[in-house]
Amino acid sequence: MTLTGKNFIAGEWSGNTNNGFTATNASTNEAMTTTFADATETEIEQAVTAANSAFISYSQLSSTKRAHFLRTVGEQIVALGDELVDIASAETGLPAMRIQGERGRTVGQLNLFADLLESGEYQGVFDQADNERQPMPKPDTRLGYLPLGVVGVFAASNFPLAFSTAGGDTASALAAGCPVIMKAHAAHPGTAELVGRAIGKAITLCGINAGVFSLIQGKNYAISSQIVTHPLVKAIGFTGSERVGMILQQQINQRAEPIPFYGELGSVNPQFILTNKLKEDAEQIAQALVASLMMAQGQFCTSPGIWAVIDNKESDSTVECFIDTAISAIENTEAGVMLTSGIAASYKAAVNEWQAIDGVTLVAQGQQSSTEHLCSAALFSTSFATFEKHTVLHEEVFGASALIVRCADDDEMMQLVASLKGNLTASIHGLDSDLKQAQAVAQFLAHKVGRLIYNQMPTGVEVCASMNHGGPFPASTNIRSTSVGSEAIKRFQRPICYQNMPQELLPLILRNT
Amino acid sequence: MTLTGKNFIAGEWSGNTNNGFTATNASTNEAMTTTFADATETEIEQAVTAANSAFISYSQLSSTKRAHFLRTVGEQIVALGDELVDIASAETGLPAMRIQGERGRTVGQLNLFADLLESGEYQGVFDQADNERQPMPKPDTRLGYLPLGVVGVFAASNFPLAFSTAGGDTASALAAGCPVIMKAHAAHPGTAELVGRAIGKAITLCGINAGVFSLIQGKNYAISSQIVTHPLVKAIGFTGSERVGMILQQQINQRAEPIPFYGELGSVNPQFILTNKLKEDAEQIAQALVASLMMAQGQFCTSPGIWAVIDNKESDSTVECFIDTAISAIENTEAGVMLTSGIAASYKAAVNEWQAIDGVTLVAQGQQSSTEHLCSAALFSTSFATFEKHTVLHEEVFGASALIVRCADDDEMMQLVASLKGNLTASIHGLDSDLKQAQAVAQFLAHKVGRLIYNQMPTGVEVCASMNHGGPFPASTNIRSTSVGSEAIKRFQRPICYQNMPQELLPLILRNT
Repeated sequence: MTLTGKNFIAGEWSGNTNNGFTATNASTNEAMTTTFADATETEIEQAVTAANSAFISYSQLSSTKRAHFLRTVGEQIVALGDELVDIASAETGLPAMRIQGERGRTVGQLNLFADLLESGEYQGVFDQADNERQPMPKPDTRLGYLPLGVVGVFAASNFPLAFSTAGGDTASALAAGCPVIMKAHAAHPGTAELVGRAIGKAITLCGINAGVFSLIQGKNYAISSQIVTHPLVKAIGFTGSERVGMILQQQINQRAEPIPFYGELGSVNPQFILTNKLKEDAEQIAQALVASLMMAQGQFCTSPGIWAVIDNKESDSTVECFIDTAISAIENTEAGVMLTSGIAASYKAAVNEWQAIDGVTLVAQGQQSSTEHLCSAALFSTSFATFEKHTVLHEEVFGASALIVRCADDDEMMQLVASLKGNLTASIHGLDSDLKQAQAVAQFLAHKVGRLIYNQMPTGVEVCASMNHGGPFPASTNIRSTSVGSEAIKRFQRPICYQNMPQELLPLILRNT
Repeated sequence: MTLTGKNFIAGEWSGNTNNGFTATNASTNEAMTTTFADATETEIEQAVTAANSAFISYSQLSSTKRAHFLRTVGEQIVALGDELVDIASAETGLPAMRIQGERGRTVGQLNLFADLLESGEYQGVFDQADNERQPMPKPDTRLGYLPLGVVGVFAASNFPLAFSTAGGDTASALAAGCPVIMKAHAAHPGTAELVGRAIGKAITLCGINAGVFSLIQGKNYAISSQIVTHPLVKAIGFTGSERVGMILQQQINQRAEPIPFYGELGSVNPQFILTNKLKEDAEQIAQALVASLMMAQGQFCTSPGIWAVIDNKESDSTVECFIDTAISAIENTEAGVMLTSGIAASYKAAVNEWQAIDGVTLVAQGQQSSTEHLCSAALFSTSFATFEKHTVLHEEVFGASALIVRCADDDEMMQLVASLKGNLTASIHGLDSDLKQAQAVAQFLAHKVGRLIYNQMPTGVEVCASMNHGGPFPASTNIRSTSVGSEAIKRFQRPICYQNMPQELLPLILRNT
């Protein structure tokens, strides 16, 4: 199969690839061969108009048919075979095995939503009529859910399959009954094209209105702006940096009609290692934290970026042991390929910026490489006093960088909790004998995170009904939503009450059985 | 009991009433005696800080205790007796019987949330651990809900009890576990003070942290701005005009941390009278629409503002009969007191503006009054072509004004549906023989409303589990939320996933039974 470099607009491949952009092979840092067309204003308008035209019929498709469509998308992704793995691996620098695993997760997500649709859950609430009620009769009221309309989705750089073209946002929006305008990530346009092709085949196989999905390629900001400000677009899903996310948020704020913006922007995923746990397991926990940090070269949204310990007379040697173990482990790590040269440059700049801060020590670095676009892990250490003073230390560094924050006592650890911005996750590492300290930390830490973990690493997100992948800002721009797990579908639905409706006018799921 | 005119800041009555504002007796249009203190910047800061300090302990109160607190608030409101009815009636011009009914609803809402808390619903979702799973064990994950933090609530002018100091927003926020900063409406500050006193008594009786509730009086915009932009305020509830709502929205948009804004801003609540229904029941439906329109002098958020009929050769005489009946009914209505002289002036200006539009006919007016602050009902008629051309006709006129839109055929009626902005409600009025037409209208109309009604008037909102009072903008700034019914509590909660937590670190409701 050859890549076309074109946009996929409501079933048609479209675009002028003479003056577009190319992807970069992340491992070699060399341009790849296909030129991709920046989508034009007209193409985006066509995509949104077609999506809106497809909305009513697609939203009224039975749950069974929508489920079948989602499963078919998954099957078509698998049918892409090794070519998908090869291109995704080349574009992102992520190893083939990781891409294969992510493909499994992506198909699993599509099937999760298919299962959900087939299960007939979300039936809403019924309140029966009561004609005898005084002073006025009670009408029959039934609470149902409607899809919001056209959803704009922005792909993430760090999950070329699971958070991209047919990733969690797309799967949950399609499951909810919403057409999707997918803005591909410019770092993996070939991966996007292949997956877009799979979705296109599934649309044809299932006889669905082609407007239900369009794939927009491009590198310029005008494209994103046009999508998020379009009056027919009714919700946005985004995973990326706080900087870009806030640009989109500001554009969305200019709209006449406010719409939900589900942006997952940044998280330092703080790790609290409690007193007795540190005494017992300093080495084991240090090694586990480094292993978690190094996953995908630190490019997981749940990467553990802050490690909090209590460092005083009582704990002195255990903190030393913990730090020494972490230093050895970090020093053993090889320099690694980053998703893009831009991410590599930002990472290096952040590491340099932190090094220059008075009171912050770079205690360990991974092995260096003479190759410019490879990055080495970095482990810093600082006191809580220094951490508190420098807001830059509270920001996520995307990549394998972590900061040990040494608190003088329990009080300072509680102040550290209070000083945190919002996070996707945090972990508390403790023994039974740490329970009192754990309770004190947990009751405040819970309000800073979307997922609170005990004695496990933050990396690795279960895709299940009880998952929450979101949290206080900047983890999410919409604290009441999750982007992973079956609850993610709710982001693209909204309640409606049907009052005194004849059976024929009710959605199937709300009719009398 | 004498009104103090003061603010109630975390348990203390505070403020300088020497240079404040007075309420107006809506019926006489004369200033009332008490001077109310505009809250100062310092008082608001104190209120928010105290609320934030109260947050963790209040949020951890058991459901039973929180339910008892809500019931006690209701009891204390009832204990205010006739004085509350007298003051609310004087400040708003609403008759005593209406205020008594609204008091019942307000207490009912508090008890509804108390019932909900006691029922132990919202227990979240559990996914059990599976240590044998390959390639990696599945951790124990449990989805729970946390309150958001301090909530700012803005009282509505048109429901001095049910959407004000202890109204639906306050009740649902307190039920969720959030402290409340209540900005009283300047049109009924005395009512607010009395209800604030009742809440204060309930706080004392239940031994709750006084920071949980503060009442802010005032007329200047700086007060609202300070509340909505305060970093410790985590959600806003507002019911009022689109103009003021959008000012608040823009201020909220400037925040570093986005927060949910639940604004209920405006709705024309369109009524679709289908062909056969019009033929059979022209007179009955016209009378019912006028009766619904005249409730509280048209000052219900669900007032029926647009009445759509098909007017062509086949329907000609029935439309005439419908309009003639409506004209007679409107002409029989007396001029009425409005909630405020500002609302009266806006209403009159809108009626004048519509009258001046080419193609819009003022077909009937209610009885006129020589008293400046009384308003007469107004019934307009226009073609769909004129309606489509003038966006001002799509806007809510707050008061007893309605517009009959004559569509040439089914197609134009569908175009009318498509041209509508978002609404709290819409009704379809039909016979069994109108079913096909009803289905065509309903499938598109559903996407324009928060509540779709069949053969009933839009005024009157059930407070129950299946209610949705919200809808697409401008009905609500947050389409995924309801401000009435038990689901309203969800506006002030957000999901959190607990992973691998020991029982002692879980909220009671998520522990193993």
